Amino acid sequence: MIGLDEIQKALGQIAPYIHKTPLIHSNSLSLLSSAEVYLKLENLQKTGSFKVRGAFNKMLGLTDKNVIVASMGNHAQAVAFAAGKLGKRATIVMPENASLVKQDATRGYGADVVLKGERLSDALAYALAQKDAVFIHPFDDDDVIAGQGTIGLEIHEELKDIDAIFVPVGGGGLIAGVATAIKALSPGTTVIGVQSECAQSACISFMEGAIRDREPATTIADGIAVGRLGERTFELISRSVDELVPAGEDAIARAILLLLERKKLVVEGAGAVSLAGLLDRKDQFTGKRVVLVLSGGNIDFTLMDRIILKGLVTSSRIGIFDVLVEDISGALHTVTGLIATARANILGVTHDRLAGDVPIGNARVTFMVEIRGKEHLAGILSLLREKGYEVHVGRSE
Amino acid sequence: MIGLDEIQKALGQIAPYIHKTPLIHSNSLSLLSSAEVYLKLENLQKTGSFKVRGAFNKMLGLTDKNVIVASMGNHAQAVAFAAGKLGKRATIVMPENASLVKQDATRGYGADVVLKGERLSDALAYALAQKDAVFIHPFDDDDVIAGQGTIGLEIHEELKDIDAIFVPVGGGGLIAGVATAIKALSPGTTVIGVQSECAQSACISFMEGAIRDREPATTIADGIAVGRLGERTFELISRSVDELVPAGEDAIARAILLLLERKKLVVEGAGAVSLAGLLDRKDQFTGKRVVLVLSGGNIDFTLMDRIILKGLVTSSRIGIFDVLVEDISGALHTVTGLIATARANILGVTHDRLAGDVPIGNARVTFMVEIRGKEHLAGILSLLREKGYEVHVGRSE
Repeated sequence: MIGLDEIQKALGQIAPYIHKTPLIHSNSLSLLSSAEVYLKLENLQKTGSFKVRGAFNKMLGLTDKNVIVASMGNHAQAVAFAAGKLGKRATIVMPENASLVKQDATRGYGADVVLKGERLSDALAYALAQKDAVFIHPFDDDDVIAGQGTIGLEIHEELKDIDAIFVPVGGGGLIAGVATAIKALSPGTTVIGVQSECAQSACISFMEGAIRDREPATTIADGIAVGRLGERTFELISRSVDELVPAGEDAIARAILLLLERKKLVVEGAGAVSLAGLLDRKDQFTGKRVVLVLSGGNIDFTLMDRIILKGLVTSSRIGIFDVLVEDISGALHTVTGLIATARANILGVTHDRLAGDVPIGNARVTFMVEIRGKEHLAGILSLLREKGYEVHVGRSE
Repeated sequence: MIGLDEIQKALGQIAPYIHKTPLIHSNSLSLLSSAEVYLKLENLQKTGSFKVRGAFNKMLGLTDKNVIVASMGNHAQAVAFAAGKLGKRATIVMPENASLVKQDATRGYGADVVLKGERLSDALAYALAQKDAVFIHPFDDDDVIAGQGTIGLEIHEELKDIDAIFVPVGGGGLIAGVATAIKALSPGTTVIGVQSECAQSACISFMEGAIRDREPATTIADGIAVGRLGERTFELISRSVDELVPAGEDAIARAILLLLERKKLVVEGAGAVSLAGLLDRKDQFTGKRVVLVLSGGNIDFTLMDRIILKGLVTSSRIGIFDVLVEDISGALHTVTGLIATARANILGVTHDRLAGDVPIGNARVTFMVEIRGKEHLAGILSLLREKGYEVHVGRSE
């Protein structure tokens, strides 16, 4: 089992190849959580996630030239990148349905991408069967864990008297390393792991004191949707982690949006669970000095778009409602006039004349408007109803 | 006219109130530009832009309690925030059509927001007429310029032997300060200002050697859409800046997208012009050490959504095309089968049965698909045409 020595050795070894990422104080998240919040920006790490730390530490210790992994995520990109820098040849096995963006990002770092089977388990079986290349496990490997743990050293070097550190948890490599480093240097710091509520294998294993399998459901934190902890990571987590908690999907989406909007940072779901975890239990951390590890930024842009739009609706900054209008000239103009009177900015208008419940000679017009909040939307709707319009509202009323 | 002394004094004064923002090396942008690229992350500054530097420096020198500005942008938020921290009372005057998000962000910092007139010039006239509050100019003020110049000191402290620095230019406060600091400390460093091609008043004034007014057109770099340089900023720019260049709107949109995707950073149009400026003339900077000032991150999210989508289409990662299909059961299924055969992921489908050029009994179905590039899209289209479908393509063919 690794300890502080291995992590310190890892940092000395990988330092020339990685970014020492910024640790920044956040005024707005401190106000929001009543804690004193610092962010460790591993989303700004090379390849967009912490995974390069473990990948470099593992591969710097290998004399073999060929490595292989099964992954369609950050581990794939990290190993591909590190292999390129170290003059090794990486083969990345992905399921056939892996997104083109992920395939291309991995090829862009110079790795060979091989597509096998329908699921990641098929790709894994294929990768493990290749005897001419060293298989690099994404988390259950001492060198990988020691590499990820270097984040703990960097945090401790820059900031003292930390009350708590929140760390995302999938297979446990990141938190096993960080907790081992932090507990050795600052035993009074509480280390809290955060999973998605849709992928709680580590939470359940931690609670029950033995490794438990739990098939993950779909989650926006897909980077930590892992069904089973590693043997090594479970042992280190059991020893050094204080708490493992789940975060809700809505809380994760809100955390992604807060980081985009308030902190100008692109953070993927798996990287934003640390903030979601803090916001879910902020009463426990009033006045405390808290570090959130933002582990990665490789979010799918179509997902990001949906989160932004949903977030704007949920937080009542966009309102969506239908108005039944007569299908005659000037009818839309009257409605847009009323909306203008209420000082709302119209972002989009769509018409539906064909739905079964729209009377012939009428159209159902859906408005998307920029609003100031719930009261503002309520005011617009009242105004329209006073004028005799039939109005239906979507999610944000 | 200010010099290095005033800027050094400013840094000593404002340091407790602002972030010393990270200066990071970018591997991916270095590869893309063939230069050695560093980014100064003022988008991570408090209130999301560099403007707090000037605001604090100005207000720390004021004994008056009341201040007033006319702005719906970063200057408004910066003054509102600084006033709150320094126990002053800020009034921010905006035109009546100012976005609700900007009004609320400003109120959120504790300032009073007053809405006046249809245009910013109306708001400005009102603000200047209020004699009970000190008007804070957004750029043409020695203390404001000295505050912005502290960015130059921070860059020089962290990185030496810089060949060129790219700085966004609106009214010129930022570049006047940065150029003054940099030329005093490192005369060999080239300072290049970048505007939007839609707002070139500074470029033209610089070229003609006298202040020229140019009414800005609409630009996604709205934060630097300024029609006239200041007297002070023009003088400092004329003395210390080497070049002023325009960047195209498409280049700015691409820069925003690159920073989001490759660097995980939210940067507004006005902040991303520095990268656009480098990419427009990268041949001149091969092998050179270049710093890009990313001046702010306060981008409107509806604009960001449009940029992401447009970028995905322009870079051939999303393809949009119409297929004319018979309006019978199974017809759509056949087409989706062909698209699946071509291994493209369908993101969205919409039907149009009503357009004048759609024959009765047919529907025009618009597909939005995730693709690997131009060749991939061409392959899908050929396959559909081979099978006899009438296909029309949008922007990305």
